[in-house]
Amino acid sequence: MNRTRVRQALEAESGMDHMTLCGWVRTKRDAKGFSFLELNDGSCLKNIQVIIDEGIPGFETLPDINTGASVKVEGSLVESPGKGQKWEVRAQSIELIGFADPETFPLQKKRHSDEFLRTIAHLRPRTNKYGAITRIRSELSYAIHTYFRDKDFFYIHSPVITGSDCEGAGEMFTVSGFDFDNIPMQEGKVDFSQDFFGKRASLTVSGQLSAENMATALGDVYTFGPTFRAENSNTPRHAAEFWMLEPEMAFADLNDDMDLGEECTKYLINHVREHCRDDLEIFGRFVDKSLFATLDNIVDNDFVRLPYGEAIEILKKAKAKFEYPVEFGLDLQTEHERYLTEKHFKKPVAVYDYPKEIKAFYMRLNDDNRTVAAVDILVPRIGELIGGSQREERLDVLDMRIKELGLNMDEYWWYRDLRHFGTVPHAGFGMGFERLLMLITGVSNIRDVISFPRTVNHLEF
Amino acid sequence: MNRTRVRQALEAESGMDHMTLCGWVRTKRDAKGFSFLELNDGSCLKNIQVIIDEGIPGFETLPDINTGASVKVEGSLVESPGKGQKWEVRAQSIELIGFADPETFPLQKKRHSDEFLRTIAHLRPRTNKYGAITRIRSELSYAIHTYFRDKDFFYIHSPVITGSDCEGAGEMFTVSGFDFDNIPMQEGKVDFSQDFFGKRASLTVSGQLSAENMATALGDVYTFGPTFRAENSNTPRHAAEFWMLEPEMAFADLNDDMDLGEECTKYLINHVREHCRDDLEIFGRFVDKSLFATLDNIVDNDFVRLPYGEAIEILKKAKAKFEYPVEFGLDLQTEHERYLTEKHFKKPVAVYDYPKEIKAFYMRLNDDNRTVAAVDILVPRIGELIGGSQREERLDVLDMRIKELGLNMDEYWWYRDLRHFGTVPHAGFGMGFERLLMLITGVSNIRDVISFPRTVNHLEF
Repeated sequence: MNRTRVRQALEAESGMDHMTLCGWVRTKRDAKGFSFLELNDGSCLKNIQVIIDEGIPGFETLPDINTGASVKVEGSLVESPGKGQKWEVRAQSIELIGFADPETFPLQKKRHSDEFLRTIAHLRPRTNKYGAITRIRSELSYAIHTYFRDKDFFYIHSPVITGSDCEGAGEMFTVSGFDFDNIPMQEGKVDFSQDFFGKRASLTVSGQLSAENMATALGDVYTFGPTFRAENSNTPRHAAEFWMLEPEMAFADLNDDMDLGEECTKYLINHVREHCRDDLEIFGRFVDKSLFATLDNIVDNDFVRLPYGEAIEILKKAKAKFEYPVEFGLDLQTEHERYLTEKHFKKPVAVYDYPKEIKAFYMRLNDDNRTVAAVDILVPRIGELIGGSQREERLDVLDMRIKELGLNMDEYWWYRDLRHFGTVPHAGFGMGFERLLMLITGVSNIRDVISFPRTVNHLEF
Repeated sequence: MNRTRVRQALEAESGMDHMTLCGWVRTKRDAKGFSFLELNDGSCLKNIQVIIDEGIPGFETLPDINTGASVKVEGSLVESPGKGQKWEVRAQSIELIGFADPETFPLQKKRHSDEFLRTIAHLRPRTNKYGAITRIRSELSYAIHTYFRDKDFFYIHSPVITGSDCEGAGEMFTVSGFDFDNIPMQEGKVDFSQDFFGKRASLTVSGQLSAENMATALGDVYTFGPTFRAENSNTPRHAAEFWMLEPEMAFADLNDDMDLGEECTKYLINHVREHCRDDLEIFGRFVDKSLFATLDNIVDNDFVRLPYGEAIEILKKAKAKFEYPVEFGLDLQTEHERYLTEKHFKKPVAVYDYPKEIKAFYMRLNDDNRTVAAVDILVPRIGELIGGSQREERLDVLDMRIKELGLNMDEYWWYRDLRHFGTVPHAGFGMGFERLLMLITGVSNIRDVISFPRTVNHLEF
């Protein structure tokens, strides 16, 4: 159907004699001889005001046109005498497409709690807030692609179904083609050799190993796709399915990695601020009053670069009371990360060179033999936004680490091969896409930046 | 590391006194007093020629610099006296970064079979063909995002883990958080109520239902992400994991859907032809001599729009011998589809209005009560590229279809709700991303357009 989007109408340079608008009614007000409709079609945050004069075709259906109903309006775009809007529509006809019973339609004009809206995740994108999040999510994804393409990175699709376990830890979901009424057993154990892939399969926790592989052929690459954790943690920060951005650069070290993380974060925030002004505005007004100050702080400051050892010293001297102990060799908890970035430095901090004992096998061993070239980038309000490292490109050192950690050497045959044939220094990081969205919108629960969140005991929609 | 990409060097406007290049050696030739290296860094198909004069720093390592080795070259970019190349590099120094043993490195300069290269999927992106496919895949993804964003579609991420089964059929993988050594049972059956999500979970076969949902709030949306089939079919066209593009439009009918499918297909082909000339060239030369004629045919012709009933008539009259029967009420097989598009019309064909018995429950019932507003877009060499439909937006008709097909009404409560509150006509389609890649490159096996393909009994890398 040849329809004008509300966004196009609101941004029009001049009036239009005739246009077709379709959308959903947000509110209706009746006056003497005419009615006002506020119409929204999802193309932008704002509604357009439609004047329905008594007697136009379809006017008689107006009693059935209530909040939530879908309508088609033919009319002209004219200057609005009202405040805060340049244009309004004077309807020539109106047609009710889909009725919404005012007795049962849940999104009447009042504020609903986030908790309630999660139970109607299929309807919440019709609200201002969730419509805005969805549009921002879309634009932020686009910004990722333009940023990396402009820098000559190639987008690769790392597989979701995997036979290996990138982190050498992590709770993974099993993927199976079995008929569960009839699982083949062998000596009292499930016989995965008879499963679809001939062995046990899982959902990936990271596309990193694939990205490393492709970087050693294409140079600079990135993945952007869903990743999974079967962690039984019911927190506002954890979901079983979430998207991750994972760039990987060949011929790069930890400094290049930190440079990329900083530049990329700033670019993405700037892009959304520029392209999603209206949508972002409501988060600054209704969700987090300090939102724009937080974003300014990130964009305007050079990120601090702080060795882990110095971070520990700062935390030890801190007057703050921490729940978890601070000691060289222990991982930083969110409370420590937030102290560093929010209280001590008051800006983003890249903490690097972590003790090898608390990091993964693939991170490059530093010359001190006790730390690895890992970096976590911490930002206010979120804590860790980015986790990355230079990867171990020396086969002998990699093998030593695989053995130390008791991993299965055979499973990594192809990963080791990359070090066997023309190995190169390379580095990359992972950025949780939802964390970035939470940072940019100020939304504090991951369930509210994913359209249909998957968490423990929640698999609706 | 501040390095110049090979692509940048080859496209340079003028020479450079000093630059750093990193990459992998494709070939080495020794001459009197100097050597030639062909260097590739994955940024483009072409290599750059590097002249290594006797005596420059690192020259003594040249015996160890063989095909597959990674090197760092400092040098100047100068005009090349050689044929077919504008620029070459005169090295000021060379450094061996990563050795590749010529005795064991599998990618020596000779042609390898696709079958062999699949067994070294971690190394094949270092070949011309697979490097090119990876770059084309990246650029094609980007084209999808620019096309839909320019048309005001929003990108949504439909969940991979699902509790429902979109097609009402289809073999799905089960996703489980169970400890498989200890699966909880209840009356002899697996007790999924004790699983991570409190019920049985699967990998999605389509993001359509989510896309429909978001379209009824945002207007026009699309998904682009991984989808899954646990089909035990070992063919060149099937993979267990593949990417799908699924646009969905509100206030749209089947004609809008066909318009979008045709325009989108042409746009994507044109984009790749324009932006991936070199990479595409090798497929036209070495993989399918008729490739560019096929692509021209698609781009230059209006797609035929043919009711299914007429398609059946044409096929019945055809002189061709078909393996599968042709009868109104039976689905078209690939041989029929290819006959229509390759032999009869010799251009793309959109076949629409299929008998309801062979299509899914959500497709809109036509007034004849026996067909539904479904469309398959068929293209030469591939057959079905796009499958779409106008969706049933009338709750009473939808309910009737759900009952007819014996589906579980309760599972679709939220999907039905979309028809209950402000329902709108809407339409969309799915396009297999790998099929499109196969069409554009002429590659005939899906395993060769996915970096790490997942098929029956194959889960390596």
